[in-house]
Amino acid sequence: MSSSVSPLAPKKTPKMPAIGGVRIATAEAGIKYKGRTDLLVMAFDPGTTAAGVFTCSKCPSAAVDFCRDNIGGGSARILVVNSGNANAFTGKRGREATKMTAEAAAKAVGGSERDVFLASTGVIGEPLDAARFTHLLGSLAENATPDGWLGAGKAIMTTDTFPKYASAVVKLGDVDVTINGIAKGAGMIAPDMATMLAFVATDAPIAAPVLQALLSKGVGKSFNSVTVDGDTSTSDTLMMFATGAAAKRGAPTIEDIGDARLSGFKRALNRLLKSLAVQIARDGEGARKLIEINVTGAKSSRSAKRIAMAIANSPLVKTAVAGEDANWGRVVMAVGKAGEPADRDLLAISFGDLRVAHRGERDPDYSEAAASDYMRGDEISIGVDIGLGRGKATVWTCDLTKEYVAINGDYRS
Amino acid sequence: MSSSVSPLAPKKTPKMPAIGGVRIATAEAGIKYKGRTDLLVMAFDPGTTAAGVFTCSKCPSAAVDFCRDNIGGGSARILVVNSGNANAFTGKRGREATKMTAEAAAKAVGGSERDVFLASTGVIGEPLDAARFTHLLGSLAENATPDGWLGAGKAIMTTDTFPKYASAVVKLGDVDVTINGIAKGAGMIAPDMATMLAFVATDAPIAAPVLQALLSKGVGKSFNSVTVDGDTSTSDTLMMFATGAAAKRGAPTIEDIGDARLSGFKRALNRLLKSLAVQIARDGEGARKLIEINVTGAKSSRSAKRIAMAIANSPLVKTAVAGEDANWGRVVMAVGKAGEPADRDLLAISFGDLRVAHRGERDPDYSEAAASDYMRGDEISIGVDIGLGRGKATVWTCDLTKEYVAINGDYRS
Repeated sequence: MSSSVSPLAPKKTPKMPAIGGVRIATAEAGIKYKGRTDLLVMAFDPGTTAAGVFTCSKCPSAAVDFCRDNIGGGSARILVVNSGNANAFTGKRGREATKMTAEAAAKAVGGSERDVFLASTGVIGEPLDAARFTHLLGSLAENATPDGWLGAGKAIMTTDTFPKYASAVVKLGDVDVTINGIAKGAGMIAPDMATMLAFVATDAPIAAPVLQALLSKGVGKSFNSVTVDGDTSTSDTLMMFATGAAAKRGAPTIEDIGDARLSGFKRALNRLLKSLAVQIARDGEGARKLIEINVTGAKSSRSAKRIAMAIANSPLVKTAVAGEDANWGRVVMAVGKAGEPADRDLLAISFGDLRVAHRGERDPDYSEAAASDYMRGDEISIGVDIGLGRGKATVWTCDLTKEYVAINGDYRS
Repeated sequence: MSSSVSPLAPKKTPKMPAIGGVRIATAEAGIKYKGRTDLLVMAFDPGTTAAGVFTCSKCPSAAVDFCRDNIGGGSARILVVNSGNANAFTGKRGREATKMTAEAAAKAVGGSERDVFLASTGVIGEPLDAARFTHLLGSLAENATPDGWLGAGKAIMTTDTFPKYASAVVKLGDVDVTINGIAKGAGMIAPDMATMLAFVATDAPIAAPVLQALLSKGVGKSFNSVTVDGDTSTSDTLMMFATGAAAKRGAPTIEDIGDARLSGFKRALNRLLKSLAVQIARDGEGARKLIEINVTGAKSSRSAKRIAMAIANSPLVKTAVAGEDANWGRVVMAVGKAGEPADRDLLAISFGDLRVAHRGERDPDYSEAAASDYMRGDEISIGVDIGLGRGKATVWTCDLTKEYVAINGDYRS
């Protein structure tokens, strides 16, 4: 793990207010790490709805398999997250570990195993010894408090150099409701020691199908628009819980995704998801620069997103940014390899406000000095206009530095 | 450019015999480099057939566009290759440069512009000043000699640390025919200064459609099975020329891809293409280890290839190999992200002869010491058995080192 905090870390930690119906506890279970928390319990009041989006990996972790089985029920009483071991590629023993954890967790809150959700992050392929922490779940659930959000963000870290938080207060009907989120991740995956996990909770009363629709839609322009190294974790998990506690204060219960009263909430949620997702790019392993890629003028939004991801995942683009080189030739290469409709002679490319290429050639006004100056900043925006249509997309990534190679190449040696 | 030769370079340079009907000349045109050759002319006797496979990039170079227009004709009199400038993303001026070069080249051999082929490799986006070398083509074609193959391999280098050669003698009918090949490339692309180019010539009399069929098939298990960084050049070009000179010595003229007399030639050609392709992986930017990935047991060969490429392009697998870490968890991750049919509980993974994982779990006989010892070698073989079918594929790549980042991040700065 890196000892120094990413230079791209947010300057301020947001206040993380209590969410009615959510209580939190953390512990040092010693699963792998020493001298730090590695176990998070989030207990929910009865009636809490749940939604989740999970990894596309064909080899998902045991915890992901477990959550997928339960998410259809749409209700949650407890979330248990451990760091230090991913419980992935652990076969039968992996399923035994999730079963043992689920039994203890259900008992801890006096609920059903159907209302338990689990996430594990850390080393792949090592059996997870659930007995290290199952005996702790009862007292953790009992002693959990509403103000534990900052500790929750820390307990789920692996190679992260800073905990990731976001919070928002927004009107639902005439009532203020709160949304809190935490996330971890420093590569989209570094399966030894990283995975993207994010957990969001709100006191808004929102039915599970609506919550799922919000989350499934919201993930597209947030977590699914971030890449560090193009590698997909076996364990990526984004979950959201709605306790409904705000109903007591008069917040309307939302049963329909088309409910007009949801629009402000939806915008706030999407901003919060984006904030957490961009924080993951800011904490990309070895990152020294945050890169935002805006593709416009593609044939469709889907096409724009593919082009943007091809640029964001190009090692050559990412090393060029690390080298503070306004190397738009590599951007052209990445557009070309995306396999989407593009015409070299219509392409325009800009770095920040500086247009470097236009209609298939270097911009006549291009200034190497101005471009070099821009590239010295720590937030780099790359704009690509395809010139064919109205499709657009924005994705975020970070530069590829020698530290990335050191973190991932020197880890076990 | 790197000054030291890759430790993975072949220990011996093969003899590159003359090919009847092919004459070669090189020159120092000063296109970008000083004190080295950067211009190659290969002149072919009348009657030479041609075939080519070009980049899939949607933003190909002007030279690729030019070759695509001519390749349908199936005949060649002259190939002109320059290094130092890719003539890519150069718009109208790019097309003017190819036209000017083609006119001069056609005149140099007294042939048609339809029988000219061009390739350019180097910086993207800078206009190519063809006037720097068009005046040289006449005397180069006139003074070209059959024994210039070693010089040809050197003239087309960019970030390559060694020139790449392969040669074979094989029977066609009862007659020995010769195949020579040269290649360059150190990333699949580093558009500043690298692109994959390969040129193969033979004295065998082979009709153009047969030559094209051989090449289109042969590229799949050679150049299309190699990746350095997953980035696709705007200029990738593989061409093959058959002069037919061996017909005078009694070699049969091959007009049909199904001709049984072609089988030995086909095998020799495929071996030669593979040798050149693997040399490109051996010269991958910053490479310290050659990685061969063998996927077996996939649903289909196509599926196996996709899985193998997902592993080969994973920065996390490549950095693990650089760190001499038998990190099979990252291999699982890469299998999972490939999106192809796979069942965690059927997977088996080996490094060299050491099986590290079996049926979804760490192999009970796994020895960290033996695995670490194996990883210290400079040629690493990763085997993945999917356990679902009979599809298999082999691809080659290299490790991802800090030197890759240095070469690509520090280049222009």
